[in-house]
Amino acid sequence: MGIEVNTKLKIAKPVNEVFEAIVDPEKMANYWFSSGSARLEQDKTITLRYEEYDAQVELTVLEIQEDKKIAFKWGAPGDEHVVTITLSEVDDTTTIIEVNEKGWNENDDELISNLLGNKEGWVYMLTCLKGYLENGSTNLRAAIVF
Amino acid sequence: MGIEVNTKLKIAKPVNEVFEAIVDPEKMANYWFSSGSARLEQDKTITLRYEEYDAQVELTVLEIQEDKKIAFKWGAPGDEHVVTITLSEVDDTTTIIEVNEKGWNENDDELISNLLGNKEGWVYMLTCLKGYLENGSTNLRAAIVF
Repeated sequence: MGIEVNTKLKIAKPVNEVFEAIVDPEKMANYWFSSGSARLEQDKTITLRYEEYDAQVELTVLEIQEDKKIAFKWGAPGDEHVVTITLSEVDDTTTIIEVNEKGWNENDDELISNLLGNKEGWVYMLTCLKGYLENGSTNLRAAIVF
Repeated sequence: MGIEVNTKLKIAKPVNEVFEAIVDPEKMANYWFSSGSARLEQDKTITLRYEEYDAQVELTVLEIQEDKKIAFKWGAPGDEHVVTITLSEVDDTTTIIEVNEKGWNENDDELISNLLGNKEGWVYMLTCLKGYLENGSTNLRAAIVF
């Protein structure tokens, strides 16, 4: 139950390349946060930093299944959200990646604005990931103007 | 008043290149709809077709200011939305593009889902536009999975 934000994109790369681009902070820096304190592994708490916006977030990894699933929680205590990233292998060269985020406070006056901001983040992250993996583009990230 | 969906992205290209990529359907086909029936010009009604999703939309151009503004309406009669695309020249090589869509029916049970779908569309379109203009990438579009 409850509101969930789902975003799903097809990437023309093998599933393991997509998985590694998410769990390896050096790869992540090419399309999303500028740095991460460690590789995403089960039960670890990681700090992701976004240099360009002078912002950082902490996430705690809840579950990792290689090439299949990465789940973590993030957000302020008492207002934590769970993010589940699911990878589906279409064939040897094509992967569908889906991001689901839940934990929304539906009584928050800022609910719609929070949902839209979050949707923006995931669509942008996934499209930058596609550009990085398929084309080697590292110049797409950090261009959203707030 | 009323809900508006705003999305803003920085593109490292001169403002005229960004403007032309929007009004010229042959350029648009590289990052958004697969074809358009004509160049976007004041008061014209244009059909945009999305081959991959077997979908099409009609839009009527309300206002064009070269290198500055493109406004149009689209949507079903009685439920029309107004889209305003504003270009701001940061310097000779950098443009900020902002998309604003309004006309939301706030009593619609599907309001949140409509807003999120729309937000997804604009963030995706703008990121694909950036990839096309900055990197020549034409493979980013048409990868959202519904």
